[in-house]
Amino acid sequence: MYKNIALIYLNCERFKKTAKKVFFLSIQLSAIIMNNRENIKTLLIEKPLKLDCGKTINNYPIAYETYGKLNSNKDNAILIFHALTGDQFVTGINPITKKDGWWSYAVGPNKAIDTNKYFIICANVLGGCMGSFGPSHQNPETKKMFGTDFPVITINDMVNAQVNLLELFEIKKLFSVVGGSMGGMQVLQFVSNFPDKTKTAIPIACTSSHSAQNIAFNELGRQAIAADHNWVNGKYMSNNTVPDKGLAVARMAAHITYLSKKGLQEKFGRKLQERDDLKFGFDADFQIESYLRYQGSIFVDRFDANSYLYITRAMDYFDLVKQFNGNLSKAFINTKAKFFIISFTSDWLYPTQENKDIVIALNAIGANVGFVEIESDKGHDSFLLDVPDFLKALKSFLDKSYSEKNL
Amino acid sequence: MYKNIALIYLNCERFKKTAKKVFFLSIQLSAIIMNNRENIKTLLIEKPLKLDCGKTINNYPIAYETYGKLNSNKDNAILIFHALTGDQFVTGINPITKKDGWWSYAVGPNKAIDTNKYFIICANVLGGCMGSFGPSHQNPETKKMFGTDFPVITINDMVNAQVNLLELFEIKKLFSVVGGSMGGMQVLQFVSNFPDKTKTAIPIACTSSHSAQNIAFNELGRQAIAADHNWVNGKYMSNNTVPDKGLAVARMAAHITYLSKKGLQEKFGRKLQERDDLKFGFDADFQIESYLRYQGSIFVDRFDANSYLYITRAMDYFDLVKQFNGNLSKAFINTKAKFFIISFTSDWLYPTQENKDIVIALNAIGANVGFVEIESDKGHDSFLLDVPDFLKALKSFLDKSYSEKNL
Repeated sequence: MYKNIALIYLNCERFKKTAKKVFFLSIQLSAIIMNNRENIKTLLIEKPLKLDCGKTINNYPIAYETYGKLNSNKDNAILIFHALTGDQFVTGINPITKKDGWWSYAVGPNKAIDTNKYFIICANVLGGCMGSFGPSHQNPETKKMFGTDFPVITINDMVNAQVNLLELFEIKKLFSVVGGSMGGMQVLQFVSNFPDKTKTAIPIACTSSHSAQNIAFNELGRQAIAADHNWVNGKYMSNNTVPDKGLAVARMAAHITYLSKKGLQEKFGRKLQERDDLKFGFDADFQIESYLRYQGSIFVDRFDANSYLYITRAMDYFDLVKQFNGNLSKAFINTKAKFFIISFTSDWLYPTQENKDIVIALNAIGANVGFVEIESDKGHDSFLLDVPDFLKALKSFLDKSYSEKNL
Repeated sequence: MYKNIALIYLNCERFKKTAKKVFFLSIQLSAIIMNNRENIKTLLIEKPLKLDCGKTINNYPIAYETYGKLNSNKDNAILIFHALTGDQFVTGINPITKKDGWWSYAVGPNKAIDTNKYFIICANVLGGCMGSFGPSHQNPETKKMFGTDFPVITINDMVNAQVNLLELFEIKKLFSVVGGSMGGMQVLQFVSNFPDKTKTAIPIACTSSHSAQNIAFNELGRQAIAADHNWVNGKYMSNNTVPDKGLAVARMAAHITYLSKKGLQEKFGRKLQERDDLKFGFDADFQIESYLRYQGSIFVDRFDANSYLYITRAMDYFDLVKQFNGNLSKAFINTKAKFFIISFTSDWLYPTQENKDIVIALNAIGANVGFVEIESDKGHDSFLLDVPDFLKALKSFLDKSYSEKNL
């Protein structure tokens, strides 16, 4: 089970040889890690990174995956940023979960993000649990897992860690940075931090800062985890327990916010779960109950509770407006990147208006920006699903931009 | 602390004397119950009630409170139904919590529901934890608290229990039945069950059946309680534990749904909690986090976790449309009651459209129905708060109806 990944020790000391060297863990670490950790590519970053919290990290791993081929001009690379519970396995079969990659609808041969044409890079975020430096790693000082001793990280820290991948592949300028939800936040932060490192930028279904309601839902998830008897103040690994009930509740809460009221009603309504009538008990009478329980249960097999705390915290802390003293436009003043912003009609987590606010900020400085609101009943999750209008818009923008010689 | 109320033993056997006799527990039970249970009026209902689940209960207590005076014609009585976490203490100081009654904005001398004019009755719902028969009562068969052995109850069961209060006060016809949220569901069910027992009916911010999203949020709350190590499959009383963490998480989840995104943003936004900057930890940095934690913590002092399970289940089961084979109009075909339906613009739990669906069903049979959508940013909670337009509309409807001689 993947939750046991939390027990894996990534011995960073072994890798102190050269900066930014690639390691294919499948060979080196197969003896000390689980078999299903095969094929996790990891870049060990020796160069110190000063985090927003004030602490400095170095010799830390960033796990990543690539798809397609980098061309000789090295001008066809797209850096994809994943959302809260995503990872680097964008498409194809995820070698850990054995399920489809989280963006299989959008990424692949001839798909919206065409792997026949583009070279795709995606990294597990800092704080994550798919190989990148996170709270399930060992604290070299205590020789125990970090748990909540791991430094609180931010979206800014995440992109500052990931930009090292460009040097690894000797890419001077990406063709695009793309991401939905928290991935979109990383897109915005990346362009702001590295204004000349991408030709285009596609933030999807995101926001420039978390609203009070967004923070509330994330806090609910964190409280659900902390309420779990097995969380043990984040030290569950040393305790040989897993706060899976709390994490499942957190996932259920989040999952409701990913779907629209209308979408839920159309898909589930009041349909009963394999029964002709109500059972007058607390089993899952309704399909929606069964569905939510299932979503919670499968999530705990692939995600680490402390990572959930850290990544939601990073999302709540994200405030690009505040970073630029209340003027979002200033975040983008130094970039010539061409933006394409996409929102969904039924997304109530990051509604169209919050996406439009980014468009407005870009327009205010005369940036090159396109925007589309896609009609969909599938809520915030629309960006992960088979929503043809969205996928067409994404493909059109990318392919048209790629064909423009002077971009 | 009120959570200990769950340990109180209401000895129903003592009351097997006459049907529908009133007991003032303050005297009889003061020796065996907590001091703060003083002044809980209880009607012991001897008459059997067949529940929707198939079981029959009798000799069960319904706790209630009254305000104002019943006139000699007995035509000025209003039965108020409370919402999920409400109780019979509508206004004034709640003698148990020592806080204002839950509808103090609306009910009192010269207020919308004028206690100088009307006689107000409100009962704690079946399944509740403020004295009415619920899961914290003793199971006479096992001599232990019912816990999850308590029968699953429905909105229909609730109103069928409460109608006994009319006989107690020898009221042939109520002037009105009023309630918001789950209280509104009881209004609808009451009029459907007892079409000639009220002159007017005011369902506020409610629905004729729970949507998939409604069920999802309630299931989330139930799962949060069940995830609590101290819940012990509902037998926490025998275990001398209280599942307060799980119940607090359930309350936090529900609380978010009671407030609008805009209202939360205006009230809290990204304001920090007694600090100048982010602390890069997991304490409550944001006011909204602190507020949610507080709401969770005070709730567990006044509410029982098993009651939360039972009452949310009753709400999820509520489906007046299904009761009438898909035709909501038929629920009201036998009544001459005058309806006034009220919704709020920012209520996303029971949106205006779901309230309008009730209006449409009533119009379809030529019922006497008024409807108003009140502009408010306060979300579903608007009906509990100081929303002047709402309170004015409520008062106008009641007072105008009361002055109509031939109603």
